[in-house]
Amino acid sequence: MLALDWGTTALRGARLDTDGRVLEERAFDKGILSVPAGGFPAAFDACFGDWAQGPARACLISGMAGSKQGWVEAPYCACPAGFADVAAQLQWISDPALRLPTAIVPGLNCEHACALPQLDSVPDVMRGEEVQIFGAMHVGGVTDGLFILPGTHSKWAWVRDSRVTRFQSFMTGEFFALLSQHSLLARTIDTTAAFDPQAFTLGVARAGQGGSLLHNAFGTRTLALMARMDAGPLASYLSGLVIGEELHDNALADIRDVVLIGSENLTRRYALAFETLNISARRMGAEATWAGLHALGQHLPAERNPR
Amino acid sequence: MLALDWGTTALRGARLDTDGRVLEERAFDKGILSVPAGGFPAAFDACFGDWAQGPARACLISGMAGSKQGWVEAPYCACPAGFADVAAQLQWISDPALRLPTAIVPGLNCEHACALPQLDSVPDVMRGEEVQIFGAMHVGGVTDGLFILPGTHSKWAWVRDSRVTRFQSFMTGEFFALLSQHSLLARTIDTTAAFDPQAFTLGVARAGQGGSLLHNAFGTRTLALMARMDAGPLASYLSGLVIGEELHDNALADIRDVVLIGSENLTRRYALAFETLNISARRMGAEATWAGLHALGQHLPAERNPR
Repeated sequence: MLALDWGTTALRGARLDTDGRVLEERAFDKGILSVPAGGFPAAFDACFGDWAQGPARACLISGMAGSKQGWVEAPYCACPAGFADVAAQLQWISDPALRLPTAIVPGLNCEHACALPQLDSVPDVMRGEEVQIFGAMHVGGVTDGLFILPGTHSKWAWVRDSRVTRFQSFMTGEFFALLSQHSLLARTIDTTAAFDPQAFTLGVARAGQGGSLLHNAFGTRTLALMARMDAGPLASYLSGLVIGEELHDNALADIRDVVLIGSENLTRRYALAFETLNISARRMGAEATWAGLHALGQHLPAERNPR
Repeated sequence: MLALDWGTTALRGARLDTDGRVLEERAFDKGILSVPAGGFPAAFDACFGDWAQGPARACLISGMAGSKQGWVEAPYCACPAGFADVAAQLQWISDPALRLPTAIVPGLNCEHACALPQLDSVPDVMRGEEVQIFGAMHVGGVTDGLFILPGTHSKWAWVRDSRVTRFQSFMTGEFFALLSQHSLLARTIDTTAAFDPQAFTLGVARAGQGGSLLHNAFGTRTLALMARMDAGPLASYLSGLVIGEELHDNALADIRDVVLIGSENLTRRYALAFETLNISARRMGAEATWAGLHALGQHLPAERNPR
């Protein structure tokens, strides 16, 4: 089968054998924002046309390709949701020009109850991460636990009996980028400096003392102003403050271990932060996406099953 | 006397009579960042040279003019600090070209204990706000209470027996600007829409439910995505989330009233937010600066007392 991860700014694809092994991988700077309206079939053909003519029996696409701005909108699948729920809601693309059955994987949505007048709940959404969670479950043989996907918008997903029961988004990566590039702190910290684990865990610990990032981030400036910390470690300290705020916003008392899915750089930081709370972390990288799309492929209706 | 508020991006001045009444006011786009090194006497002369030749007996300057990048560095005055402490630490400028005794008001600093390995405490600083607090105390005849100065970097100052015992900074205004102008939310919300009090207090209430802004800010996007709130009220909702996070980061159980000092637009929002917590607010505007500098003038050593 063919597996595609079509995001906002990037497009990645893999050719998988029937056991899910990656036969070939490709990556392009062709995120959905760079594709003109109606241009998705042509973009697909330009990048993967040769693969579509090969022995593959189906193609599954995850990510923002299923959003309003994408190829075909795939409505969100409501939590709790597992493999079968998502497979049943695949959005098959009806385009006669397509050489093989092609479907978009729906994202997940859930509701955070808040019981306020005129606001019963606030919705939450993910697109693409659900496939990585399924992949990590499949690869690790894990059916229950807490899966965390650090990133621009981190996702925390609670999984029970192989279904995502609920999840929560945090703008952690974006806040760090805003603070380090566009705020008053941009002149104070040096984001090119090597990662400083000690300053990072200090930031995590400071965030754990209960104060808001609104206040703690200002401390990054005053520590520099009073020459108590250099520009290099300050970047790691700020990273610790932001990631620490994300961690401490969750009830972690009963958590012993977590699964972290994402880039080496980010999952390493999160693992270090969890270590300070005596929580162990298993880390997974991009392979989770292919494993997830392959696992979903196993749940396709018989007439479209790529096996 | 002459009273100047010389900030990072703006310069304001007033000529005051011996009772503190404003005789004349001027404002310039000449913040300290626009003044070249060594250029402060010339900038002062260009803006207020005629005033300096008049009957004024002294000139007091507050704000960033006392920072490292300013005219003359005025070291911070440590909390607890009152009128007399600040008056005793005025940084008199020794420039024979100056036509009248001119001094820079020092800012305040304090320490937030955190008892972490290698980080006993995190410093906090203000420059300019201390004068506004003194002014509000003087005008209102208040010697004790909580004074809040909303802004790019909000300040909360606890005052006892006319002295600032401690204070705390929050990057509230800057976070709102970053989120509404530079983040993913910039395309979602409409900051030019009229202020929506209902959406604002909804945001304040949501922030009061304990979740971090890292998560709640993402809700601004999903509420738009799911068409549960329009772009106009969303801006007010986000404003409520950010200001609400600032409020709820403080222990307010014993607080019955606060003094708000700042722009009409901001103090109105904060007063509304406090109202939802049954805390009443007294509001003051820019006049607090002149009142504070005038009150400080009453505490000058006899030989320099403008009276």
